[in-house]
Amino acid sequence: MNIKENVTQKAKQAKKAAKELANLGSAYKNQALLQMADALENKQDMILAANKKDMQRGRENGLSDSLLDRLLLTEERIASMAQGLREVAQFDDPIGEMIEIKQRPNGLKVGKIKVPLGVIGIIYEARPNVTVDAAGLCLKAGNTVLLRGGSNAINSNQALVEIISNAACQAGLPEGSIQLVETTDREAVQVMFKLNDYLDVLIPRGGAGLIQAVVNNSTVPVIETGVGNCHTYIDVAADLEMAEQIVINAKTQRTGVCNSMETLLVHQEVAEDFLPTIVEELRERDTLVKGCQQVQDLVADVEPATEEDWATEFLDYTLAIKVVTDFEEAVTHIDKYSTNHSEAIITENYTKAHQFLDMVDSAAVYVNASTRFTDGGQFGLGAEIGISTQKLHARGPMGVNQLTTTKFVIFGEGQIRD
Amino acid sequence: MNIKENVTQKAKQAKKAAKELANLGSAYKNQALLQMADALENKQDMILAANKKDMQRGRENGLSDSLLDRLLLTEERIASMAQGLREVAQFDDPIGEMIEIKQRPNGLKVGKIKVPLGVIGIIYEARPNVTVDAAGLCLKAGNTVLLRGGSNAINSNQALVEIISNAACQAGLPEGSIQLVETTDREAVQVMFKLNDYLDVLIPRGGAGLIQAVVNNSTVPVIETGVGNCHTYIDVAADLEMAEQIVINAKTQRTGVCNSMETLLVHQEVAEDFLPTIVEELRERDTLVKGCQQVQDLVADVEPATEEDWATEFLDYTLAIKVVTDFEEAVTHIDKYSTNHSEAIITENYTKAHQFLDMVDSAAVYVNASTRFTDGGQFGLGAEIGISTQKLHARGPMGVNQLTTTKFVIFGEGQIRD
Repeated sequence: MNIKENVTQKAKQAKKAAKELANLGSAYKNQALLQMADALENKQDMILAANKKDMQRGRENGLSDSLLDRLLLTEERIASMAQGLREVAQFDDPIGEMIEIKQRPNGLKVGKIKVPLGVIGIIYEARPNVTVDAAGLCLKAGNTVLLRGGSNAINSNQALVEIISNAACQAGLPEGSIQLVETTDREAVQVMFKLNDYLDVLIPRGGAGLIQAVVNNSTVPVIETGVGNCHTYIDVAADLEMAEQIVINAKTQRTGVCNSMETLLVHQEVAEDFLPTIVEELRERDTLVKGCQQVQDLVADVEPATEEDWATEFLDYTLAIKVVTDFEEAVTHIDKYSTNHSEAIITENYTKAHQFLDMVDSAAVYVNASTRFTDGGQFGLGAEIGISTQKLHARGPMGVNQLTTTKFVIFGEGQIRD
Repeated sequence: MNIKENVTQKAKQAKKAAKELANLGSAYKNQALLQMADALENKQDMILAANKKDMQRGRENGLSDSLLDRLLLTEERIASMAQGLREVAQFDDPIGEMIEIKQRPNGLKVGKIKVPLGVIGIIYEARPNVTVDAAGLCLKAGNTVLLRGGSNAINSNQALVEIISNAACQAGLPEGSIQLVETTDREAVQVMFKLNDYLDVLIPRGGAGLIQAVVNNSTVPVIETGVGNCHTYIDVAADLEMAEQIVINAKTQRTGVCNSMETLLVHQEVAEDFLPTIVEELRERDTLVKGCQQVQDLVADVEPATEEDWATEFLDYTLAIKVVTDFEEAVTHIDKYSTNHSEAIITENYTKAHQFLDMVDSAAVYVNASTRFTDGGQFGLGAEIGISTQKLHARGPMGVNQLTTTKFVIFGEGQIRD
């Protein structure tokens, strides 16, 4: 069987399973999630052995330390994946809820029912925890999944999917509910892009390159996720002490994540007060500061920030800082360079706060808080499958609810149209 | 300026206007809609003269009568477009509504605000009324539009857009809110497919060929609309008198529309009672009946229905009829051939009614009513911009609400993440 046939076959099975899974009650799905969790823990030796192979090959292939860390599974990390599944089992099941049922003048009762999307394709990097997290969330919302993880994690993913897929079947879920593309050939991804007959949506999770490849080549509808060139703007009316804490948090609390700050904008009237201290604090936390001319004038040894820097998601201990003339320049800068993920204003000025909320067109817009909160758990949505930076269907953190759609249901008594 | 530059330029203008329009209050938008309506009526001579040119060229190019009818504008039709705009002005404005604002344990207030999508590209056939309807609905929800109508309507569209665009500007809407692609070269559509930087969504309105071309080639997110191979299933427990009325209505009340019935499925135990009468009634209304072997056995002079017929949206006085063994065969047939638009069951059996609602995966699923009701107005959503047959973002009739998205807004008091 060639790659195209193989991937198509798996997607077909997932589609078949999706029809059955769509109408299974919560009890079955929750039981499956719990059994999947138990199975992960019971078979952790098998997972660790498979992961060891991936780690060894990863080292041979010269993967960076941070990529190796993402690839690594430990007893603790397996327990954490299992715990994640148990938490998902506790969530409310969105499926089957009827909403907005209204009676029309002719007596027709018209409303909607929440239903699964169907089959969700996930294309992601060599992070085996995504395999389990994504499968769990998709199943909870009644969807089946076709998973395609990074080739460096193939052994880990095969072990994980074998274990959770068997556990799900034993709990009564249809066979084929969790499918893994097992070839590491890139052609497999190209095939997924065109499987409109079997995949209802593709969700890429990973870096900008991966996401752009999916957006530019997939005819299957895509939910674009995650690239975050996030900004924080320190207004002239900011509480500078609050601003300091938020800037340090947004930049350094965790750097390799999409909701961390990459560019700091500072109103010119507070620049002299604010910048020397904050740069010192950032440097104490090993952060490289790049800045515009005014920043360089105010603080010693600041590297010039280039046009490219303003557009870069550093995902590292690097921050670009720009002094702006006023609120409007801050908003214009954000409009030009932002990836529309998360942006914050720090201000005590009521009008400016609300103008910022209105004018900044990003998935999450903050007043007086760290952008690091853009996260399904932090927003109270439970676990998330990613953070959408597009406008269709879902925007911002996507929880179980965003993995559903609706259909109209119409209860009639023989009505016909005039 | 070449075609690519020209189309890109218009999209850029639309994007610029969208930023301004997004934060204009309802009063401006409603005033613009009313002034657009007045302008259409005041300048109807200009519209009729432009339309006359299109009609003449259409006749020379040998357009069919039904295409010429879609292209034709009359005083009455212009009044009806104006009336449509006035109705849209009356709708509630969805923009700015804050929803689901909840306080998190750390005091952060997290919720969503409804905002426009941004710039909506509409690709449609030579139906000048779509130009006005689409522009009106998009503006109401705070979006700007880039319109690309069929080349046979180019003169009409130019006149219409000139009139409504000027009226909108005079009412205070940003210049460039309503843009028309004025070249009739097909290259313009190819350019639109790739304008991810300026278009937030593309909505194709038209036949299956047009829609597939957009879905298969656009990297801009698409909302697939409209193709309707709709089914009605007459269950063994149907009230046959009700079934008769619904079948006649769903097939013949209007045939050239996506929500009309194309295939009738009849349970074998009622086939003998039901089919001879219904076929006679359909034939009295000039409907050509094609059928499976069993239909041919029960009724004289029925053409055999081919595999292709089951998959065809006739959009005409043609109906394919199949006798099925049981409920399951009906659902399986629908699953195989439906375009997931609208399907109905006619039954008095409570369990079968609910099973049908659960098992049929279409945008609108009916019990005991005509599929002809799948329509924004009939469902109580106001005017519609199309009927989505995809699962992402919007499914079924799309009104003003479906032309919006949300962003998360977060009100903090200095919160940082642990």
